[in-house]
Amino acid sequence: MIIEIPFRCPGPLDQTDFSIATIGEPTLDSPIRGQRFISPDHRVSLFTDMREIKEWISKDQDPPSLERAGPREKIFHDPAWTRVGIVTCGGLCPGLNNVIKGLVQVLWFDYGVKNIFGIPYGYRGLNPSFSHPPEILTPDLVDSIHDDGGTILGSSRGNQDPKTMVDTLMRLNINIVFAVGGDGTLRGAHDLAEEIKKRNQRISIIGIPKTIDNDLNLVDRTFGFESSVYSAAEVITNAHVEAKGAFNGLSIVKLMGRDSGFIAAYASLANTVVNICLVPEQPFVLEGNGGLLKALERRFAKGKTHAVLVVAEGAGQNLFEGVTEQKDASGNILHHDIGDFLVAHIKDYFKKINVEMSVKYFDPSYIIRSGPARGTDAIFCYQLAENAVHAGMAGKTDMVVGSWFGQFTHVPITLATCERKKIDVTGPLWNAVLSATRQADYFKSEK
Amino acid sequence: MIIEIPFRCPGPLDQTDFSIATIGEPTLDSPIRGQRFISPDHRVSLFTDMREIKEWISKDQDPPSLERAGPREKIFHDPAWTRVGIVTCGGLCPGLNNVIKGLVQVLWFDYGVKNIFGIPYGYRGLNPSFSHPPEILTPDLVDSIHDDGGTILGSSRGNQDPKTMVDTLMRLNINIVFAVGGDGTLRGAHDLAEEIKKRNQRISIIGIPKTIDNDLNLVDRTFGFESSVYSAAEVITNAHVEAKGAFNGLSIVKLMGRDSGFIAAYASLANTVVNICLVPEQPFVLEGNGGLLKALERRFAKGKTHAVLVVAEGAGQNLFEGVTEQKDASGNILHHDIGDFLVAHIKDYFKKINVEMSVKYFDPSYIIRSGPARGTDAIFCYQLAENAVHAGMAGKTDMVVGSWFGQFTHVPITLATCERKKIDVTGPLWNAVLSATRQADYFKSEK
Amino acid sequence: MIIEIPFRCPGPLDQTDFSIATIGEPTLDSPIRGQRFISPDHRVSLFTDMREIKEWISKDQDPPSLERAGPREKIFHDPAWTRVGIVTCGGLCPGLNNVIKGLVQVLWFDYGVKNIFGIPYGYRGLNPSFSHPPEILTPDLVDSIHDDGGTILGSSRGNQDPKTMVDTLMRLNINIVFAVGGDGTLRGAHDLAEEIKKRNQRISIIGIPKTIDNDLNLVDRTFGFESSVYSAAEVITNAHVEAKGAFNGLSIVKLMGRDSGFIAAYASLANTVVNICLVPEQPFVLEGNGGLLKALERRFAKGKTHAVLVVAEGAGQNLFEGVTEQKDASGNILHHDIGDFLVAHIKDYFKKINVEMSVKYFDPSYIIRSGPARGTDAIFCYQLAENAVHAGMAGKTDMVVGSWFGQFTHVPITLATCERKKIDVTGPLWNAVLSATRQADYFKSEK
Amino acid sequence: MIIEIPFRCPGPLDQTDFSIATIGEPTLDSPIRGQRFISPDHRVSLFTDMREIKEWISKDQDPPSLERAGPREKIFHDPAWTRVGIVTCGGLCPGLNNVIKGLVQVLWFDYGVKNIFGIPYGYRGLNPSFSHPPEILTPDLVDSIHDDGGTILGSSRGNQDPKTMVDTLMRLNINIVFAVGGDGTLRGAHDLAEEIKKRNQRISIIGIPKTIDNDLNLVDRTFGFESSVYSAAEVITNAHVEAKGAFNGLSIVKLMGRDSGFIAAYASLANTVVNICLVPEQPFVLEGNGGLLKALERRFAKGKTHAVLVVAEGAGQNLFEGVTEQKDASGNILHHDIGDFLVAHIKDYFKKINVEMSVKYFDPSYIIRSGPARGTDAIFCYQLAENAVHAGMAGKTDMVVGSWFGQFTHVPITLATCERKKIDVTGPLWNAVLSATRQADYFKSEK
Repeated sequence: MIIEIPFRCPGPLDQTDFSIATIGEPTLDSPIRGQRFISPDHRVSLFTDMREIKEWISKDQDPPSLERAGPREKIFHDPAWTRVGIVTCGGLCPGLNNVIKGLVQVLWFDYGVKNIFGIPYGYRGLNPSFSHPPEILTPDLVDSIHDDGGTILGSSRGNQDPKTMVDTLMRLNINIVFAVGGDGTLRGAHDLAEEIKKRNQRISIIGIPKTIDNDLNLVDRTFGFESSVYSAAEVITNAHVEAKGAFNGLSIVKLMGRDSGFIAAYASLANTVVNICLVPEQPFVLEGNGGLLKALERRFAKGKTHAVLVVAEGAGQNLFEGVTEQKDASGNILHHDIGDFLVAHIKDYFKKINVEMSVKYFDPSYIIRSGPARGTDAIFCYQLAENAVHAGMAGKTDMVVGSWFGQFTHVPITLATCERKKIDVTGPLWNAVLSATRQADYFKSEK
Repeated sequence: MIIEIPFRCPGPLDQTDFSIATIGEPTLDSPIRGQRFISPDHRVSLFTDMREIKEWISKDQDPPSLERAGPREKIFHDPAWTRVGIVTCGGLCPGLNNVIKGLVQVLWFDYGVKNIFGIPYGYRGLNPSFSHPPEILTPDLVDSIHDDGGTILGSSRGNQDPKTMVDTLMRLNINIVFAVGGDGTLRGAHDLAEEIKKRNQRISIIGIPKTIDNDLNLVDRTFGFESSVYSAAEVITNAHVEAKGAFNGLSIVKLMGRDSGFIAAYASLANTVVNICLVPEQPFVLEGNGGLLKALERRFAKGKTHAVLVVAEGAGQNLFEGVTEQKDASGNILHHDIGDFLVAHIKDYFKKINVEMSVKYFDPSYIIRSGPARGTDAIFCYQLAENAVHAGMAGKTDMVVGSWFGQFTHVPITLATCERKKIDVTGPLWNAVLSATRQADYFKSEK
Repeated sequence: MIIEIPFRCPGPLDQTDFSIATIGEPTLDSPIRGQRFISPDHRVSLFTDMREIKEWISKDQDPPSLERAGPREKIFHDPAWTRVGIVTCGGLCPGLNNVIKGLVQVLWFDYGVKNIFGIPYGYRGLNPSFSHPPEILTPDLVDSIHDDGGTILGSSRGNQDPKTMVDTLMRLNINIVFAVGGDGTLRGAHDLAEEIKKRNQRISIIGIPKTIDNDLNLVDRTFGFESSVYSAAEVITNAHVEAKGAFNGLSIVKLMGRDSGFIAAYASLANTVVNICLVPEQPFVLEGNGGLLKALERRFAKGKTHAVLVVAEGAGQNLFEGVTEQKDASGNILHHDIGDFLVAHIKDYFKKINVEMSVKYFDPSYIIRSGPARGTDAIFCYQLAENAVHAGMAGKTDMVVGSWFGQFTHVPITLATCERKKIDVTGPLWNAVLSATRQADYFKSEK
Repeated sequence: MIIEIPFRCPGPLDQTDFSIATIGEPTLDSPIRGQRFISPDHRVSLFTDMREIKEWISKDQDPPSLERAGPREKIFHDPAWTRVGIVTCGGLCPGLNNVIKGLVQVLWFDYGVKNIFGIPYGYRGLNPSFSHPPEILTPDLVDSIHDDGGTILGSSRGNQDPKTMVDTLMRLNINIVFAVGGDGTLRGAHDLAEEIKKRNQRISIIGIPKTIDNDLNLVDRTFGFESSVYSAAEVITNAHVEAKGAFNGLSIVKLMGRDSGFIAAYASLANTVVNICLVPEQPFVLEGNGGLLKALERRFAKGKTHAVLVVAEGAGQNLFEGVTEQKDASGNILHHDIGDFLVAHIKDYFKKINVEMSVKYFDPSYIIRSGPARGTDAIFCYQLAENAVHAGMAGKTDMVVGSWFGQFTHVPITLATCERKKIDVTGPLWNAVLSATRQADYFKSEK
């Protein structure tokens, strides 16, 4: 099987259920005018590779596909009576405010839904013990928020008890919840949907995936990622300048990416001055003749008096295996920080071999994630919000709005969160990184 | 038939030939190591809509598809003997230097091709009568050019006689030409390929489509477009500020887009403060009760004391029909400039109805197109260059490197240039613009 | 006499009155705590050149000086009863919102003045016939406005009848007016102060000079200028890219500066890629052997295949003298626009001499002036606002807050507006421009 | 005595020698044409306060003054035979490349000096044992370097033996050295000048002060400072967004400023969202009722759910006094890092009092200092370079080019480096910070 955008399924692909849950039959006419409705049987093929498509067909099976998002001719929720909650969870990400603005604007103007509530500070805003009540959102209030990074609703990490949250939703008479967040948030959203189902309530739970790392399964793009790449590429310019400013100067830029190195890889391609790019998907060797330290030493020895190294925060975790125990006493933060680890080991190494060099360390994550969404990323946010509203009004639930080959789709939350998307290190993205950086050696095994 | 990304073919779709010409059989082993080669029979379906795919299959036909770009295991040109020419033509566009850098870097490092020539100032640099000779390009020379807008090679408009150009190519012993340019340039490239074929020469002509308007047929994305949207969205902020700064202030922003309004539409979505977005694909009415002027008047009368109008340069050409003759005497520039036309007519109208207002006019095209490529757009440039080199080395010719559903493809030049891609005004893009702007009236017919 | 920062006086310098009018004796204790008060007899010397200072002293005269701005120990207006109006007039300028925020914040927190009114759309907001009433300003309302260009109050050009305006001020019980605007606005403010004096009212009129051209007499710096230079320098990069992108490419950037070329001169120094900088203070020759056209021709002939020309809008007005009548028939717009004029004449010239070249024209004024104030310019706005409040509370009137050798001062409106500040073409600024551009010839007389 | 811009002298002011050393009598005619020469007796008063000026005069003394910089009619070095060295030392600072470009351009075009050498990597480039020789600088080579941060020459910290360096200078036949650097560099430059004097050589040593902290004595502005404030203000926006994104979110931004808090103070004024600004000049109390922790607690208790704190790296050193010994075991880095210290103590405190909050820490120094100089800061660099060349060609030595009340001056190195410039906490700058932040309590003593 050929996988073009890597994805995984919990079971065999041909037994995977891609269908979307609903809370009821859509029977009302959509108030939307002048738009072409998307037919409920419009599905986007998971594959575009003709060989793959023909392989399925030769087995008399349809290639697996995702429901196409978009406005439905028939909707479930009556706009006049619909009450909506919007909640943003987890770490900041460019575009949160764009999504909020988009949701409010499409609900208000396209559907005529005028009861929209912002849940403050993530799921905890659904906990009745929390001091801050939901606030009413209107188009005026959100008119210019897309200029600013962050989220006007505030955010928080961690889930709350689904029972308590459903109690709150029922007390507030909320019919649709738009939950903007990552893995954990979406799992919480799934738990919410389950609890609602148990209680037989008519509340739609629509997830809007937020992962700055762009690592959601079955979703080829998440909002904020593009803007983050843009900002990360700018910091790489600073790192390049610092590296060149000192004799044998090395700049290390740590970027987001616990499990997947998309930001590091993209940023290294967006600003092709990076010499070394390290991601979690591709283990590397530090010591020995085939290791990174030796590669750096050779680079300096050849008269290249600077180097720029970009590292995803989750890269090189294998290097900590032996290390962990040794340093446990002094707190466990340093162990897992590959940035600090590299700085320390590289300094040590060059001191030992008596080669003068200097290291500058950049940790720009907060600066990157707190910026606003830009350009086409902002458009993506608006369209995500649009399609989330369409899905919610049509009575869908327990799903996220995704993108597949650039088309908006509906994906069951359980599939989107079953595994993280990762860089295919034999695919075109990583090939381009290898080509642009000319790096190689330290990815070989050490033998 | 359902068309997801609008495209056209010169004849019936099922009789269209999507195959790529070659100048010879690729028989040499690729020097590339550590990358997964793309199989020659890997093709990307033109459709992802399952209904469409099944319709073709039910007719016992494969859905039409494009050859997938990427590194080939067997190549045609021997790197050691290969001499390459790179030429940039037409108006500036963000990313030209990124493409040049990418071509040089991939040729040099991945294939070991070290004879790379920059043709100065477009096709005229292939005219022996031109004063500037080609210059040698090396990785060092192009190392930091991706930071800058424009093209280090210079550019020019217009084609040269293909015979003269092939003479020059033969004199220079060039084996692959990378021609970066728009419609006209690519048609020139096709003529080159034809002339080469006639002479039975082994010179590959690989087009890299450059259209800031993103209007190339069968290509879902062109480089520089994303960065242009980004810059255009920034200017819209300025326009918004100016509009709000004056009582009944109207800012008019003219953006690129002679035949297709993609930049105008995207920019209006990227910065959702636009109230009116006019594109060539959707004619509008100026006068009368259902016209734009009246709509503006109503807006001001409602106490909305500002408005932002974005107009693609090719919008409203219908309005010039009667006008042309009247104004012919004073030069023909003003007639076809929709920006000036709108400024004049709107001022006149409000003067006539004695409503105070003011107009500010923005024409930022040169500023937008001369900027550098940013973030993911820069990556796109690098990957385009990569895939262009792969195609050229494999002996392909008379083709452009395109993108379809986000995957790099080979497209015959004749198909890519047979017609322009346009906004589908019943599709999701224009729907999003209508939703975000809340505009409507003046697109109805006047009756 | 040596003049370091050029300035003019209506009469002989030693007979000029630099004292500031007041509406009454300051007798109340300032509520400000923890700041060092500025003594009323603290004056800033107009000169720092020791030779100049000693010349005055040798004549037994004090060198002329300006009252130093800052918090006074004794104030006139009782904060509890003070009602303030803020009005912004004329074209946009970076920093207007910073000034408004600063005024509100200092009035509210430092003095405890809580009745602050924003006058909408310039002086016309003081005309009772205007539809928009003043709105109440609070710290919360202005909290984040400094991020945005423009003015939240709106603006308009032109003055209103002082009598009507004073009627309105009296009806609103306003005690201090902060008028932010240029020459015309300040003259209007002076008329207001005169009318108030006639009526023996206790209303302070404090001008905050806003001239993006930085051309106010006796004021060495005006807000927004620095940010404008910054933005203009960025556009010059675009112009440089466009110029280099074409064979014999010439980019012409028209910048603000009707009477004084400060923005053009500063921008040319801030981005030293400018080859030609034309300002109103230095007439230039177009035709003939010593003219600009010939100089350009020589530049291209030498193989320099591009040029960047920056021109202040008021430059070269001498060239229109003969021209005006000739072109009167085709409308009077082209005559006075030096940008269009240069484009047309240069194109003509090179066509005539049959040298290929191309011209790109940039007119970025709206983009520049609608941006926000940045960095130290934003600080300057805050401090201007601070000092304006101090002056107003102390009972000063008919004055502007200025800056002299970097220190905040009080300047009588009549002196600040008696003449425009201009570039001294024998001084260090213009010398630096000549040094950086290497231009020379066309400034000689033609003979 | 009133000090307007704070400065110190090693001895009593009236006995301080402000005169500039020379290496010989300037007797050659300057080749500069069309500029007004600065007379050697043009001096800039250290004071503009008329009371101060009159106090000196009443004592029959001239107020102290600095030599005015600028082109001299008579110069010492013969351009045809002059060989120049340029060296950049210490940490990066915006504008280094602008200064280098300015020096080369003015030397080459204005004086005709064509032997200009770039000393690589600071003073170590003058050590004959260092592997990198000086490289020749030409206008072409430096033409576009002003767009980039950093220094094309590279830099290094620390001084070399003056004897060795003078040996090298003599071997290279260098006549003027432009040393761009901070305190330490300038002291090294003074040592060079002394050694040269001893050997009776005719080598001018001209310092160009580079201190991103803007803390040089008798110099009211240093290059790069303005651009740093601009960049720091942008990071404060990020910090504000992060703070507001979390419940009781606190963002801490550590900025440069070991001894002087100018960047922290200016940045807090440039982006008036800062709630707490801590600088070295103003000690603060952490614990107790009047302390910072309690102030933060009160802020959160009042329902202000976020805070932005800016701290100069040298602030709060008093807090480490007791602390040092306690933490010595776990390494000495944390002790002196006020940022880490605050993060740790604040987290502890709120944990102890059981108030939920979260801290985000920003350390953007490398990003700030590696950016390019912008706008008026770039102009300042050009003019500094101009005036440095004028001084060098005139035969001055052992001096820096400074700025006083906005005018370029000559300052003896020993005076410029005798003490650091610091914020006057009773002056207008700190007053503005107090006004804009509304902070107060924790600066009182604890009692």
